[in-house]
Amino acid sequence: MKKKKNVIVYLPSCHSKPLKNLIVRNKLKAFYFLMIFTSSGAGYHSESKAKEYKHVCKRACQRAVDRLRAGGLALEAVTSALMELEDSPFTNAGTGSNLNLSGEIECDASIMDGKSLNYGAVGALSGIKNPVLVARRLLSETQKGKLSAGRIPPCFLVGKGAEQWAISHGIPACPTEKMTTKFSLSGYKRNKRKMELAEQVETKRKRQLCEENNSACLDTVGVVVVDREGNVAAAVSSGGLAMKHPGRVGQAAHYGCGCWAENARDVSLYSTAVSTSGSGEHLIRTMLARECSTAMQAENAHQALLEAMQNKFISSPFLAGEDCVLGGVIVLRCCTCGEAQRSEDIQALLVEFLWSHTTESMCVGYMSAQDSKARTHISRLPPGAVAGQSLAIEGGVCRLGTVSD
Amino acid sequence: MKKKKNVIVYLPSCHSKPLKNLIVRNKLKAFYFLMIFTSSGAGYHSESKAKEYKHVCKRACQRAVDRLRAGGLALEAVTSALMELEDSPFTNAGTGSNLNLSGEIECDASIMDGKSLNYGAVGALSGIKNPVLVARRLLSETQKGKLSAGRIPPCFLVGKGAEQWAISHGIPACPTEKMTTKFSLSGYKRNKRKMELAEQVETKRKRQLCEENNSACLDTVGVVVVDREGNVAAAVSSGGLAMKHPGRVGQAAHYGCGCWAENARDVSLYSTAVSTSGSGEHLIRTMLARECSTAMQAENAHQALLEAMQNKFISSPFLAGEDCVLGGVIVLRCCTCGEAQRSEDIQALLVEFLWSHTTESMCVGYMSAQDSKARTHISRLPPGAVAGQSLAIEGGVCRLGTVSD
Repeated sequence: MKKKKNVIVYLPSCHSKPLKNLIVRNKLKAFYFLMIFTSSGAGYHSESKAKEYKHVCKRACQRAVDRLRAGGLALEAVTSALMELEDSPFTNAGTGSNLNLSGEIECDASIMDGKSLNYGAVGALSGIKNPVLVARRLLSETQKGKLSAGRIPPCFLVGKGAEQWAISHGIPACPTEKMTTKFSLSGYKRNKRKMELAEQVETKRKRQLCEENNSACLDTVGVVVVDREGNVAAAVSSGGLAMKHPGRVGQAAHYGCGCWAENARDVSLYSTAVSTSGSGEHLIRTMLARECSTAMQAENAHQALLEAMQNKFISSPFLAGEDCVLGGVIVLRCCTCGEAQRSEDIQALLVEFLWSHTTESMCVGYMSAQDSKARTHISRLPPGAVAGQSLAIEGGVCRLGTVSD
Repeated sequence: MKKKKNVIVYLPSCHSKPLKNLIVRNKLKAFYFLMIFTSSGAGYHSESKAKEYKHVCKRACQRAVDRLRAGGLALEAVTSALMELEDSPFTNAGTGSNLNLSGEIECDASIMDGKSLNYGAVGALSGIKNPVLVARRLLSETQKGKLSAGRIPPCFLVGKGAEQWAISHGIPACPTEKMTTKFSLSGYKRNKRKMELAEQVETKRKRQLCEENNSACLDTVGVVVVDREGNVAAAVSSGGLAMKHPGRVGQAAHYGCGCWAENARDVSLYSTAVSTSGSGEHLIRTMLARECSTAMQAENAHQALLEAMQNKFISSPFLAGEDCVLGGVIVLRCCTCGEAQRSEDIQALLVEFLWSHTTESMCVGYMSAQDSKARTHISRLPPGAVAGQSLAIEGGVCRLGTVSD
């Protein structure tokens, strides 16, 4: 029988009102955009680590904004930001990824372009410094059309084959040792001891160990971007669960689960981009990225995300037996419609960005091209709230504009 | 710009009316079920091959029905039938799978249980005779709860890690040579020559070669079942595209793309099970299995499937640049509602089963527990219809019943 979960929602007042509301009269043509992303996914962030995460987030924001200022589109900006996040030894993606049961690094990553709706993903990939770069390359190869003898180009490659494909497409190999950090190695040793202990002790203690372990290994990263043309893109990258079985692929390499991006078209009023982080299997089975994207077509973004996180994640029929559902999402939606077109000489883009999580905390950063530096924030469940059963939701609205020709 | 495709629909009269309409008064308690499946997926079936495919389909139907008669549920029946299909050297799944670019076999398979909504999948798996057995085992392990130190059990494993996991869970290894057939090896050599030729010749001829090549390598298999308790299950297995890049994973290992099964609950009136076959990348990007399942909640199943195949597949915005979209689906939906409950002493289950394809042909088999043998049928597009742009849709209705206690 399905257990009715008691969902508690927290809406911290400091972030439930718009974070920023600006109209920029920019003489430079069409300087529309904004970016947000989550680093250190949805695990627990100690105060000491928080500073590091915020720094990484800021650098990644800056990278994306630099790319956009140089004329890059959303797809290029998400890739740049995500590479910065992968390169940080503090995140569980690329360098510093969790080690699997065999002490190896196997990464998952995917990217989606809201304009073309093209998609690329890699799973259980070893020996490549930036997994998202391979996903990005798979996406571009898809756009070039068929291979010789009419073979359809792959959109999803895994394991050794993915590594070989990357190298044959000019992406350099990187020895695993270079991607392993002191931190990831000590985490591996600690987890191994815990596992050995857990095999011996009784169920109650095992449960507790579980939570400790889980909370330490969900720090994956994701990025969502809208560019000056109004195109959206999303990407996600993860080293996966600590001590996962070799070959395990999580949501970050799963279509519709790790990231989603769709420009507005026909019946869809809003362009949406979503990136997820958390327990891979739960995010796969609930297809959370796509579900959130679909929900975002409702008028009230805040309410829609709240309902999606409650009904499609915590209380999802696909996770009926689970009493602890850990995950987080960042969501971006935008339109040029309605009240945004108030002034004749200003073409405005209304951008809403929201984040929500059922984990203890989630670190987000965001920046628009008009900002001189990125803002970062660590969102936390209030003391006493039970992670995996409660959720926090925050966000803001940003109006970006440019002088029309 | 998106090209408006001219979709032509064929509704062969011989199958657009109910294939069978029966009420069985069975003294044995609750003998509800029916099964259908597609073998030889959605490629082109020569008359000479057709006989072989039909035989395989019949044997697989029989296996599932035997399992159901012995008291097995839908999940066990799909597994049995799919193993029979994988074991046939004529199908592109398990033994006799297409070889990849390196001349190796790498299989994809997945299974979904409509009752628990649990799911298991393997991708790019070598050295295991029955990939669906590994997917099935992943699904059961998920149901057992967390691993030591609170790790969530994987639902999707790939490559070498998947092989090791299978062996450590008692599934025997199988040397690749044993799974390679004369047919798959000669196909590999022929394709290799074609590829070498294609690299030399001009685009027009390349296109033609493409079609020849594609049509030969889509013969994947899938099964959908409803059992006496009204539970549905679906499974799918594939050797993937011939000459695919090592590590390429297709729709058969992709959640929501290769198969889908959902028992009726709350807002869903119908239980649905779907299995897909065809060009993996197209089936991934359109998430066809889940889309068809969702569509099946509409009142008119035939019309709903027709619209789903037109709007969510051939003319899907996710495949805007593609002028040749190859795929096929088998769909099963059932309910105990409405007109089925006509008699007081008979509890009837109304089952609708449909299949549709944009490929030249698709082979299906179906059987209910009341049948003494399976029926098979090769559905074809009429002469002149363009594969990848036209679709055929067929199916029937079956009323299964049992005396209530």
